[in-house]
Amino acid sequence: MPLLPSKSRLAHIVFEHDDKASKNFDLLILVLILGSLLVVILDSEPSFYSKYHQEFLAIEWIFTGLFTIEYAVRIWLSNKKWGYIFSFYGLVDLLAIIPTYLSLIFVGTQFLVVVRALRLLRVVRILKLGRFLKEAEVLKSALLASRQKIQLFIGTVLTIVLIAGTIMFVVEGPEGGFTSIGMSMYWAIVTLTTVGYGDISPITPYGKFLASVIMLLGYAIIAVPTGIVTSELTMANSRSIKIKKKKKMCKSCDSGNQNLDAIYCNYCGEKF
Amino acid sequence: MPLLPSKSRLAHIVFEHDDKASKNFDLLILVLILGSLLVVILDSEPSFYSKYHQEFLAIEWIFTGLFTIEYAVRIWLSNKKWGYIFSFYGLVDLLAIIPTYLSLIFVGTQFLVVVRALRLLRVVRILKLGRFLKEAEVLKSALLASRQKIQLFIGTVLTIVLIAGTIMFVVEGPEGGFTSIGMSMYWAIVTLTTVGYGDISPITPYGKFLASVIMLLGYAIIAVPTGIVTSELTMANSRSIKIKKKKKMCKSCDSGNQNLDAIYCNYCGEKF
Amino acid sequence: MPLLPSKSRLAHIVFEHDDKASKNFDLLILVLILGSLLVVILDSEPSFYSKYHQEFLAIEWIFTGLFTIEYAVRIWLSNKKWGYIFSFYGLVDLLAIIPTYLSLIFVGTQFLVVVRALRLLRVVRILKLGRFLKEAEVLKSALLASRQKIQLFIGTVLTIVLIAGTIMFVVEGPEGGFTSIGMSMYWAIVTLTTVGYGDISPITPYGKFLASVIMLLGYAIIAVPTGIVTSELTMANSRSIKIKKKKKMCKSCDSGNQNLDAIYCNYCGEKF
Amino acid sequence: MPLLPSKSRLAHIVFEHDDKASKNFDLLILVLILGSLLVVILDSEPSFYSKYHQEFLAIEWIFTGLFTIEYAVRIWLSNKKWGYIFSFYGLVDLLAIIPTYLSLIFVGTQFLVVVRALRLLRVVRILKLGRFLKEAEVLKSALLASRQKIQLFIGTVLTIVLIAGTIMFVVEGPEGGFTSIGMSMYWAIVTLTTVGYGDISPITPYGKFLASVIMLLGYAIIAVPTGIVTSELTMANSRSIKIKKKKKMCKSCDSGNQNLDAIYCNYCGEKF
Repeated sequence: MPLLPSKSRLAHIVFEHDDKASKNFDLLILVLILGSLLVVILDSEPSFYSKYHQEFLAIEWIFTGLFTIEYAVRIWLSNKKWGYIFSFYGLVDLLAIIPTYLSLIFVGTQFLVVVRALRLLRVVRILKLGRFLKEAEVLKSALLASRQKIQLFIGTVLTIVLIAGTIMFVVEGPEGGFTSIGMSMYWAIVTLTTVGYGDISPITPYGKFLASVIMLLGYAIIAVPTGIVTSELTMANSRSIKIKKKKKMCKSCDSGNQNLDAIYCNYCGEKF
Repeated sequence: MPLLPSKSRLAHIVFEHDDKASKNFDLLILVLILGSLLVVILDSEPSFYSKYHQEFLAIEWIFTGLFTIEYAVRIWLSNKKWGYIFSFYGLVDLLAIIPTYLSLIFVGTQFLVVVRALRLLRVVRILKLGRFLKEAEVLKSALLASRQKIQLFIGTVLTIVLIAGTIMFVVEGPEGGFTSIGMSMYWAIVTLTTVGYGDISPITPYGKFLASVIMLLGYAIIAVPTGIVTSELTMANSRSIKIKKKKKMCKSCDSGNQNLDAIYCNYCGEKF
Repeated sequence: MPLLPSKSRLAHIVFEHDDKASKNFDLLILVLILGSLLVVILDSEPSFYSKYHQEFLAIEWIFTGLFTIEYAVRIWLSNKKWGYIFSFYGLVDLLAIIPTYLSLIFVGTQFLVVVRALRLLRVVRILKLGRFLKEAEVLKSALLASRQKIQLFIGTVLTIVLIAGTIMFVVEGPEGGFTSIGMSMYWAIVTLTTVGYGDISPITPYGKFLASVIMLLGYAIIAVPTGIVTSELTMANSRSIKIKKKKKMCKSCDSGNQNLDAIYCNYCGEKF
Repeated sequence: MPLLPSKSRLAHIVFEHDDKASKNFDLLILVLILGSLLVVILDSEPSFYSKYHQEFLAIEWIFTGLFTIEYAVRIWLSNKKWGYIFSFYGLVDLLAIIPTYLSLIFVGTQFLVVVRALRLLRVVRILKLGRFLKEAEVLKSALLASRQKIQLFIGTVLTIVLIAGTIMFVVEGPEGGFTSIGMSMYWAIVTLTTVGYGDISPITPYGKFLASVIMLLGYAIIAVPTGIVTSELTMANSRSIKIKKKKKMCKSCDSGNQNLDAIYCNYCGEKF
């Protein structure tokens, strides 16, 4: 038995997800990703930043080092190296390490924080081949099947937002915070989606009346996307159930629809 | 090949939506509509208004000129000119150009801004014959089928709003913002729809208790419209699937809709 | 033809809802109820109250007079007078007139405003036998069928509210507005129902974290009542459809499942 | 007839829920639990605390005394005493009495208030074997069946929260309250769940635009868990209905689950 696993064994551990070694590797990467995200989140906290920024920076470099090694190993193990590098996952892997190196050149640019948070996308690969695959498939097919209905719905919502926003801009005026059509449209979205921050809210009676109508409208139309997704999911579910149901056929009289544990045919009495 | 398309060809391009030329024309009008709306939205922004109002006014006149030409061409190409002018789409097309001309007479009336935003309704014509038609049909039939249930639901909600509003007006008093029954009803709508601005909120313990009951009620009854629309959509979906299902055809009289295990045709009595 | 309708004809007009005269009477009462409610709502508005209170009072007395006449006529026309007086609708009719008379004795008690708003309940009688009856029946049966599930759900929500409220009271303390367990429970209801006024909101990091968990929980469990009502409504709908479907039976071979417009039986070829 | 019920009869009353005596015992315990919780809630109210704290303390000790007696009786009546003590319900019963005794040692620790509120969990035992059992079973099976879909959904929501939070942190900056990624993630959860306190809300135009997108996203994805639970509940419902549907029984071998048009029994081959 060799000290180190063979290259093909290593490739299996790194790229597959089906045995103990490869699952442990996935778990290790998952912990590293979540750990590095935690450092990004904590470092953004002003009270932690002032005290521990140097420590966070050091840990960040350790994580980046490990991810760089992982990236190099993945390239080395790939048969089609350029294919991996320019694949979706290859680019996400690159995005996971590049911001730290770029931070040496562009000092103090917060934009890199966003790119660093995109590391979370790496988790997708690990979960991809797990137990969620089938469920994700059902959800995806239900959402895809209702794609056009959802586009139609979003179009309707945006039309309501534009018209409601314009009317409220004219009716309410700048006192209530409706300083422009854009602001009014923001308010209309906040209201229709029932979020309701309250940073902008109508103060005139007419504005309050109109807002009430828009709220009731929003309350009613929230039912539509739920209805769309639910009815598609119900159908996707019943489809997958129908596929699961296998019927026992009678070879003698060729009639199906027998119980799976039947011993005699319901229609000709033949023993199975 | 003539330099300009014939009048009937032009009419096809302008009024139909089924070949490349007519689709390009639709796209051009769509871009013009969205562009003119963007100008209206940006012009309402105080910071843009003070800097670029003259430029926005000029662009607005260009858009209005183009829409006026389009309107004239549509009238010229229509066989029944008055029929087009007084049709829904004809009036919407007129509404798209009239506010700019009216702004010459009525200077500074913000009301025209609302009419200008109604230009968005012109988009409906373009989308009408597109790929959304069938989906819109299903949604519309589901909503129509549940029309009476939704009316009943809105009536129930308004009754709850009136009674909850009156009780809160009496219980809370003007300190918490419940200065009139109208104001309390506005609060009740804001609460029942789970928007919750927080501009008016109960401050006495009794008011808070009553508000909690109303919130839980709102939480429970939000389930009702969703349930109505979903169950109608599920049925509309399963109906359209059933229609798609292949029927046994009779070769003798060419009629479908036979039972799959039929031995004789329902309509001509021919044996299969 | 007599000048006045007979007593039995009057009773029909007042108590039934099935011909032109009785429907017109219903409409008149509906207008009177909504009119009197409008007066109550407008009179509560401080700006209207100071200007028009005397006028509103006069109109209120006219409405009360009309309702008193209607109440007297209803008693006079009833065969079982005490039966009507102590019936649900009889009591609601009495409630509609009594507050105005009581206001002569108890001057300035706002409590009577609530009783006055209960006039809206009189609308129920008018709508009861209208076109909403069947729909209300379906909704009611769906809600009744899911009664126990909804009770269970409300119990679960109240348990979450108590425990979340207690934990937040201990974790947050009075700075964020969590001054007592009752206040925290009010906050938990405002949060779980996604109303979110913002009058009380967590300020410590631990409180914010706990609040996030509660919000996600609320987001997830809002799905449960919707699911309950929807699945009951879908079943109620499909039940009423199944009842509508009538099958054509073949008298010759006794097999059903024939098309309704079939001329020949699918199974024995017999002409219908 | 003895003065006191026998030990086995007492055990039945205390541990079972099926006759009048045991149901009365359950009701008594339920009232005691709710009463003791009411005292905890009222005692936390500052205005009540200052006036009645001594009285509340006395009542609390009475309740604790009664619960201690009940706990001792339950141990005495159990056949497997240690089995009861370390069972889930045994530990919950212990938790119901221990905080009051601990408050003698640890004076003024509010943490004990939380443990006291956990008394509510004792209610579960009483309700467990009641009429809610079947309904709870259906709900539980529907939630279990959609477990993986819900995990997937929560994972997706948390990914959106992290990425949206990071982007908003960079775009908005500390003026709007987005002082750290953690704070931004809290805001993203408040927004996605449509709670919308308004304690943190975007103030820059870019932040408002991004927030609008996140709100519309939240509005759309709220449909997903509802859809999941609803479709599972519909299926669980129709399953339980199918089971109820009468099956053709074989009189010869007494086995059900035969096709309704069967001529021979599936299990013994007997002709019907």
